[in-house]
Amino acid sequence: MSLTIRLHITPYNTLNLHTSSKTKFTSYSTRIRPKPIYHSNPLIHFVYNKPKMLDSSNPVESSIPSIKSSLIDPDGGALVDLVVPENERGAKALEAESMPKVRLTKIDVEWVHVISEGWASPLRGFMRENEYLQSLHFNSLRMADGTVVNMSLPIVLAIDDETKESIGSSKNVGLVAPDGDLIGILRSIEIYKHNKEERIARTWGTTAPGLPYVEECITSAGNWLIGGDLEVLKPIKYNDGLDHYRLSPQQLRKEFDNRQADAVFAFQLRNPVHNGHALLMNDTRRRLLEMGYKNPILLLHPLGGFTKADDVPLDVRMEQHSKVLEDGVLDPKTTIVSIFPSPMHYAGPTEVQWHAKARINAGANFYIVGRDPAGMGHPTEKRDLYDPDHGKKVLSMAPGLEKLNILPFRVAAYDTVAKKMAFFDPSRSQDFLFISGTKMRTYARTGENPPDGFMCPGGWKVLVQYYESLQIEEETEKPTVLST
Amino acid sequence: MSLTIRLHITPYNTLNLHTSSKTKFTSYSTRIRPKPIYHSNPLIHFVYNKPKMLDSSNPVESSIPSIKSSLIDPDGGALVDLVVPENERGAKALEAESMPKVRLTKIDVEWVHVISEGWASPLRGFMRENEYLQSLHFNSLRMADGTVVNMSLPIVLAIDDETKESIGSSKNVGLVAPDGDLIGILRSIEIYKHNKEERIARTWGTTAPGLPYVEECITSAGNWLIGGDLEVLKPIKYNDGLDHYRLSPQQLRKEFDNRQADAVFAFQLRNPVHNGHALLMNDTRRRLLEMGYKNPILLLHPLGGFTKADDVPLDVRMEQHSKVLEDGVLDPKTTIVSIFPSPMHYAGPTEVQWHAKARINAGANFYIVGRDPAGMGHPTEKRDLYDPDHGKKVLSMAPGLEKLNILPFRVAAYDTVAKKMAFFDPSRSQDFLFISGTKMRTYARTGENPPDGFMCPGGWKVLVQYYESLQIEEETEKPTVLST
Repeated sequence: MSLTIRLHITPYNTLNLHTSSKTKFTSYSTRIRPKPIYHSNPLIHFVYNKPKMLDSSNPVESSIPSIKSSLIDPDGGALVDLVVPENERGAKALEAESMPKVRLTKIDVEWVHVISEGWASPLRGFMRENEYLQSLHFNSLRMADGTVVNMSLPIVLAIDDETKESIGSSKNVGLVAPDGDLIGILRSIEIYKHNKEERIARTWGTTAPGLPYVEECITSAGNWLIGGDLEVLKPIKYNDGLDHYRLSPQQLRKEFDNRQADAVFAFQLRNPVHNGHALLMNDTRRRLLEMGYKNPILLLHPLGGFTKADDVPLDVRMEQHSKVLEDGVLDPKTTIVSIFPSPMHYAGPTEVQWHAKARINAGANFYIVGRDPAGMGHPTEKRDLYDPDHGKKVLSMAPGLEKLNILPFRVAAYDTVAKKMAFFDPSRSQDFLFISGTKMRTYARTGENPPDGFMCPGGWKVLVQYYESLQIEEETEKPTVLST
Repeated sequence: MSLTIRLHITPYNTLNLHTSSKTKFTSYSTRIRPKPIYHSNPLIHFVYNKPKMLDSSNPVESSIPSIKSSLIDPDGGALVDLVVPENERGAKALEAESMPKVRLTKIDVEWVHVISEGWASPLRGFMRENEYLQSLHFNSLRMADGTVVNMSLPIVLAIDDETKESIGSSKNVGLVAPDGDLIGILRSIEIYKHNKEERIARTWGTTAPGLPYVEECITSAGNWLIGGDLEVLKPIKYNDGLDHYRLSPQQLRKEFDNRQADAVFAFQLRNPVHNGHALLMNDTRRRLLEMGYKNPILLLHPLGGFTKADDVPLDVRMEQHSKVLEDGVLDPKTTIVSIFPSPMHYAGPTEVQWHAKARINAGANFYIVGRDPAGMGHPTEKRDLYDPDHGKKVLSMAPGLEKLNILPFRVAAYDTVAKKMAFFDPSRSQDFLFISGTKMRTYARTGENPPDGFMCPGGWKVLVQYYESLQIEEETEKPTVLST
């Protein structure tokens, strides 16, 4: 499996190759893919039944937290928002023009997006060395008042020797997107050494070649890191037809309030939703209702930044997710589908903390965690890179995540007797079929149908069409390759 | 330098080779080394001048903590002591005989020693998986009451498949020293996977071959870790003529009380003491007196467990240290020399936290930290393994060490104008000579004298004699090697 992954990795942050990868996405979107059902944010179309208000005379109900504008406080107490107000943009852009420039990669821009909207609150920019070291060694940051917030991934910006030299002793730099647009400012900068080996070892727990984020983003990056306070000249947009799905933490919190949610449970994913996922999301809702919550809302929150090349692309996944709601597998009335703009590290127990922490900032007070979160196969050995149980264990003990309710879920698998996805029952293990992501992709790629009840038909069709489109592209591309 | 280190590493925990390494020590001790000055614990011989009591009418002095039995609380509130009371030993030994056995390496026994005396308080045994994961990811443990203690190194016991199988479903195991002695019990055991790659990467920030502790202790270790509650049948002794130097945290705390210390500053080292070290220790005392403390006591605390083969052996270092006190470079009246029984990881910023944390448990409320603590050269690249400044930065931010006063020191170097070790003055950097540990060893090995004032003559003589003895041994050993 490791070999397969490595063969499928396509370059992502070098500019010319990044363009070709972009073209690939576009060609699929425009030529082959059928029109998605949701052209705008699906959540604004839902007819929403207002819940009964809580009855405080009932002793069980009165112990339930009352509906409030925030179910859970953002880390650091206030949501960070680093987008420059509209009336100041002209002046700031002019100021930025005069500063030394740092050219960003596509993934750097994703991080600018993440930081600017407060997903990483209380972080106010790319990490300075003190924050970097705390993240690397303690997976957390100590605040001035002595409290601790979780911060498991180093959110850093690498620059090369040449850029460092061009910055000289300047205090501030302008940030330039790959397309040449000036998108932000980093103020009161600090430049420090980028020890890649140490960063990789402490973040991934391995230095084996073939880690997707490392190969994409670190190996060829500069030997310096630059930290500072970020200002973004205007909200980051991708113009890929999916921006309406990209709700900021502030927008999500507002939407939870509009729906009068008394509990929000977040589900992080980077794969198509099959009925096993749906089972546990619906089961979680059932459990929350049993606990006494009246209106638990599901935040179905696919990751939208960098993913490895053999993962299903974002646009296909969004279409698949919309089919799952359309087919009624998940209830649109109690579900919000939105994109989490972070890039993927595939760093297992270290990364799952980031995934949970960012959802605190988005207002979720329950977080679902499954087997081997943010995991993958070891890039050079025939085994999982991480112990599949470590993710949920580490998450349950992580500093700064005490206020979040962690919901570990039981493993779901295909029950060949009941002919549907069900929670695995070890007493009749022979009846269950485990369908991994790799297996699912193989089904879709070969046109073979998965067992009945594995995924809703509409969602499955989206995947099959995507893999067919890939084969058509491969066929089309072959002669080109031969002729060069 | 890396190559040199690797060539000098002698095996340590395999039994037959360990014997030969022991023989080497013994032969030096008995054949060549002159009789050490201190045959018993030097601290009990010191004539001690009682300090003036604090004057609480003086506003500056009244803000100083009053003299108390503990200057700083042990982690977890109470010092762990896992040595079985004498009257229970017979029964416990009998009980242990009936349990499945785990054979320990020499380094495992050093950890048994460390845990049993409470250096790792509140740890009460080898780590179970929950403790291991917290140590690996967060460098700290969360206690039941929500407080956090530092715990940066995984203190774990590895077993192989065969031992795991022999344990079966037993709840408790007996611990057997390399010489066959039954020395302890591990109760309510938990066996979990030993992912060596991940452990190494997260602890050292590299997986490069040639890390001394890894090669000695992890590479050939079993694929399982066994955690549980430790009981030690009697205090661990080494019978190497140095046991009188091995004061437990409890004994040290008592000694600080006897001396009526109002501040204890610990100095961790694994090298001979040169006048640069002495300068900063004396300067620290001066600063503490200026701060208003009346009786600061120095804990000169050489590490006594496993060290890499090209480090100066413990017995030679202890003799060298005793000369430093004898020659008056450090004042015996305000200095306690004792051995810290931990093995050395050479894990830089991760390990320095352990070094500091263990000294909290021993009652030190000030900790001196210098350049590149617990560091070494990268085993395969021509650079320091760690950024020399990271140790003190990480230490100052480490969770659970907030109550400890960290004293970073300025770099001392040989001042060629003043002809003595002095704090480095960057305004006349050309006057300073940096003498590294490697350089110092080269001087001693080649018989060349270091510059006047680098080290007290008595201490230097000990080193020269040690390196001469090594050469004699090498000469003597050569024909043996050829004849086999």
